[in-house]
Amino acid sequence: MAATSWEDSVKSLKGVILDMCGVLYDAGEDGGTPIPGSVEAVKRLKALDLQLRFCTNETQATREVFVAKLQRMGFDISVSEVFSPAPAAVAVLKERGLRPHLLVYDGVVPEFDSVEKANPNCVVIGDAAEKFSYQNLNDAFRVLIGLEKPVLFSLGRGKYYKEDDGLKLDVGVYMKALEYACDVEAEVIGKPDPMFFQKVLDDMGIQSHQTLMIGDDLVNDVGGAQHCGMKGVQVRTGKYR
Amino acid sequence: MAATSWEDSVKSLKGVILDMCGVLYDAGEDGGTPIPGSVEAVKRLKALDLQLRFCTNETQATREVFVAKLQRMGFDISVSEVFSPAPAAVAVLKERGLRPHLLVYDGVVPEFDSVEKANPNCVVIGDAAEKFSYQNLNDAFRVLIGLEKPVLFSLGRGKYYKEDDGLKLDVGVYMKALEYACDVEAEVIGKPDPMFFQKVLDDMGIQSHQTLMIGDDLVNDVGGAQHCGMKGVQVRTGKYR
Repeated sequence: MAATSWEDSVKSLKGVILDMCGVLYDAGEDGGTPIPGSVEAVKRLKALDLQLRFCTNETQATREVFVAKLQRMGFDISVSEVFSPAPAAVAVLKERGLRPHLLVYDGVVPEFDSVEKANPNCVVIGDAAEKFSYQNLNDAFRVLIGLEKPVLFSLGRGKYYKEDDGLKLDVGVYMKALEYACDVEAEVIGKPDPMFFQKVLDDMGIQSHQTLMIGDDLVNDVGGAQHCGMKGVQVRTGKYR
Repeated sequence: MAATSWEDSVKSLKGVILDMCGVLYDAGEDGGTPIPGSVEAVKRLKALDLQLRFCTNETQATREVFVAKLQRMGFDISVSEVFSPAPAAVAVLKERGLRPHLLVYDGVVPEFDSVEKANPNCVVIGDAAEKFSYQNLNDAFRVLIGLEKPVLFSLGRGKYYKEDDGLKLDVGVYMKALEYACDVEAEVIGKPDPMFFQKVLDDMGIQSHQTLMIGDDLVNDVGGAQHCGMKGVQVRTGKYR
């Protein structure tokens, strides 16, 4: 992004998708801090004749709570502009008449309020962190192995991430565990899954070649975008090294 | 085993390896119960001019504790005749000068008393059950990812087993989780690993084609034995269906 201005880069484009953590803000204590210039960059993008959406694999809070945090940092952003795995999962569950057993972080449970959960016929796992106990994993496993055809959804496929007190295992690791236990392949909902990006394109009403994805993750953001026919650009903030 | 007597089957053989759980006894409350006829069968095998060894993937207790349980059931069995993954792992660790970070069940920890564990340069996981917490798995992961070349040992590769209160995830599932997190392939110690069976053959001082393996598990016992050139026989007790 160094050689050309933001305006030049997007002149031929109809829409931009922004990753959030590492692009708009850095995670950390007290919810994180905005990356210098990013509040202003969002303002300038919004002033152009462009569709703008935000796309995150965040699954520890509802979109409402997450967006409120960004607003407090000064970002001009609304819930309807943000795409995260949990609401996408809810749409898939309803489409297919599936009732999930949830193994997710407490903060994201309200996203699933509108979904029938009694007598589950699938399992949804997210970045459940401390809730990935032996007991909870056994419970999810027993639901899966009890189904005639086990259906497992994973909200992302990340391996690990960094927090203040060290590296932590991400949802993808537990996805692999349950896949092996049940001889099943999980359906991944979230970046870099093409279906996930397609929902964002559908919402903007534009084609992939008219869209630029800006992120700090070479696999989930840039690679995922390019796989869908979008342009992908990696920023030199966040996890960029 | 129905068509011929035990004596006829082993006449041309120099050694027999017996699986334990499901062959000698059935697991259950109060440590389990001997399978009818098995105490007598061991006695008859010992009366023949044969090498006899016992081979188990049990990793929740030391051999001493485990063998004492079998002796209380009436079996003529001693610690030196029993091969289980933990002592085999100890031998490998010492051979290669490795200092393990252990993620195993409390009951098996004493098996590793003689091994240097400070400043670990590998990870050993067993069927840790409730000790497979998010925190403990993160700790094991951090040791692995901090090594220039991560070395992971798994005491068996089982997917799950049944206890009185339901199915429980076994060590293989957590092996897969750590393999994915660290882009590493675990070294499996225990049945059906050929190296594990070879140690038993070495101890008996005989060749694989002179040996009969008797077990209730088609993959870990019979398949593993046949893969090594032994004869394998599946009993119709234990997990046989």
